[in-house]
Amino acid sequence: MSTANRPVLAITVGEPAGIGPEISIRAAWALRESANCVLVGDAAFLALTASLIDPAIRLSALSVQALRNGGLPHFGKDRLAVIDVPLGAHVVPGQLDAENGRAVLATLDLAIEGAQAGWFDGIVTAPLQKSTINDAGVAFSGHTEYLAEKTNTSRVVMMLAGQPQGSQPYLRVALATTHLPLKDVPGALTRDNLTQVIDIIDHDLKTKFGIAAPRILVTGLNPHAGENGYLGREEIEVITPALEGARARGIDARGPYPADTLFQPKYLQDADCVLAMYHDQGLPVLKHATFGRGINVTLGLPIVRTSVDHGTALDLAAQGLGRADCGSMEEAIRAAMQMAASRRP
Amino acid sequence: MSTANRPVLAITVGEPAGIGPEISIRAAWALRESANCVLVGDAAFLALTASLIDPAIRLSALSVQALRNGGLPHFGKDRLAVIDVPLGAHVVPGQLDAENGRAVLATLDLAIEGAQAGWFDGIVTAPLQKSTINDAGVAFSGHTEYLAEKTNTSRVVMMLAGQPQGSQPYLRVALATTHLPLKDVPGALTRDNLTQVIDIIDHDLKTKFGIAAPRILVTGLNPHAGENGYLGREEIEVITPALEGARARGIDARGPYPADTLFQPKYLQDADCVLAMYHDQGLPVLKHATFGRGINVTLGLPIVRTSVDHGTALDLAAQGLGRADCGSMEEAIRAAMQMAASRRP
Repeated sequence: MSTANRPVLAITVGEPAGIGPEISIRAAWALRESANCVLVGDAAFLALTASLIDPAIRLSALSVQALRNGGLPHFGKDRLAVIDVPLGAHVVPGQLDAENGRAVLATLDLAIEGAQAGWFDGIVTAPLQKSTINDAGVAFSGHTEYLAEKTNTSRVVMMLAGQPQGSQPYLRVALATTHLPLKDVPGALTRDNLTQVIDIIDHDLKTKFGIAAPRILVTGLNPHAGENGYLGREEIEVITPALEGARARGIDARGPYPADTLFQPKYLQDADCVLAMYHDQGLPVLKHATFGRGINVTLGLPIVRTSVDHGTALDLAAQGLGRADCGSMEEAIRAAMQMAASRRP
Repeated sequence: MSTANRPVLAITVGEPAGIGPEISIRAAWALRESANCVLVGDAAFLALTASLIDPAIRLSALSVQALRNGGLPHFGKDRLAVIDVPLGAHVVPGQLDAENGRAVLATLDLAIEGAQAGWFDGIVTAPLQKSTINDAGVAFSGHTEYLAEKTNTSRVVMMLAGQPQGSQPYLRVALATTHLPLKDVPGALTRDNLTQVIDIIDHDLKTKFGIAAPRILVTGLNPHAGENGYLGREEIEVITPALEGARARGIDARGPYPADTLFQPKYLQDADCVLAMYHDQGLPVLKHATFGRGINVTLGLPIVRTSVDHGTALDLAAQGLGRADCGSMEEAIRAAMQMAASRRP
């Protein structure tokens, strides 16, 4: 629930041995005038970290039980709220410890609970380390999959976004397939799957981004979008029928276009979102153009969720505070704020 | 053979119904002070086209027989030389005519003959239409393949290059595989093939680009470069062994790196060339960053060859002269000039 027009965002601080806690605190503090950020993590560890970053940073603990009984209290712009999820072991920056795996997962559970209960307008997740959670004895394949499961969502879509340098328009790139070996990509691309992905993109750009008539430009699977079947037939047999179906339902989805042509700025200016068929077709341009300031948005969820587009950077964390760039985290918070503001059923 | 320190470049003007003749004339004329460009095409058609572009453009015909007997004569900066390769049929801009297919091929034959005979320091090719040549009864799969065959080269490597906007370093992207359906890419990637590709890149960056110790950064095939085998095993079984072999031969080839990470500017600044595993992994970033001013270089040939990175643009040609952008053609000429100047055995 927004307080005084500042959306309330839960920030899960991620793997404690990585840069997540630092960038969460710095980004939330920098944006405290516009967003009401609630850090979800070990309160004592966050208080220590905050005091080392800047003694001026003020934290206030929120009681989960009080939240569950009465919702989120009003609180001001001069401090960050913290919901305490105690860690199992002492944190040594840069060193993973499976003892802390379940606590990381518990921060997600709490953020999801709060977003569904209406305490939070959205969730922003700092990077975690999958192996820590798995080593703690819980099968875990990633934030996105976990959020989908916990919210009973059958299909989600990964979208990365960011502001390119210079005067280029804001860039959004969604993926039809995500973390698959390349050899499995063609088989995973079916007309049904693609249809669901396009529907989710169109729905979420309307309902979470306030874009009245989203323009979705779609790549081919093969080089030159298959060159009329000479370089592969998936464009003819799978992608084009899915796009025709989408257009028949009133969705402005065009393509398939050759990926190397489509990502030229003169074509991107006519797109609200590019749908790429697979990971390395879509993300190199996004990350090149946004200089490490891209963000990750999960489409299809009943809640707003954004995250950074980088990892835990254990090596950087091991070197001490003050080295990590919190730019992507700030962008992820801003994006969640805008999504929360644009949201309609 | 260079005259007065201006390298001599043959420019094949490509498909006559496309934008090739116009951009060839405009780019060669713009750069006449620094490059000695010899247009290879139908002299009457080129003279007419030049007169419509700018009446100040002067052309001088060169006789092939005189060239064959005595090599290239000295000629000045106030005109463009033309070697006449007569077309079979009248040209209607925008309309393909198979009657002209063999003439387009003859321009390539003459340029190759001249480069091998030493008349030319390099060849710059304007775009042609494969179908016109095939419809003329000659099996033809592309410039690159044709040049390889005619020069008895068993393997060539396609590299695109260009200057990104802003202050980013010059970007070169070579491809381990080119025009294959995506499903055939993993199978085409063998240790032997990759080894040959890396050797050609290293050799040509040294001998044609004057880079003493080329730094080659190599992508993985799979997302996240396979994530230690969880997302595919080609990195472990094919790419890493090929890179280890290359380094054992003294080549500075590093990787495999995740493609979406590697193409971030902070990593590109340490690369003379990125080797991508396939077309749509490497070219979207290149074409995005260079805004249509990228060029195509064929590595592995015994001669210097560059070309534009776009097609014949028949629709643009049909609208009349003055609409095409000759920027990529100018860059292709500049690149061939630099390669000719850097060249050593």
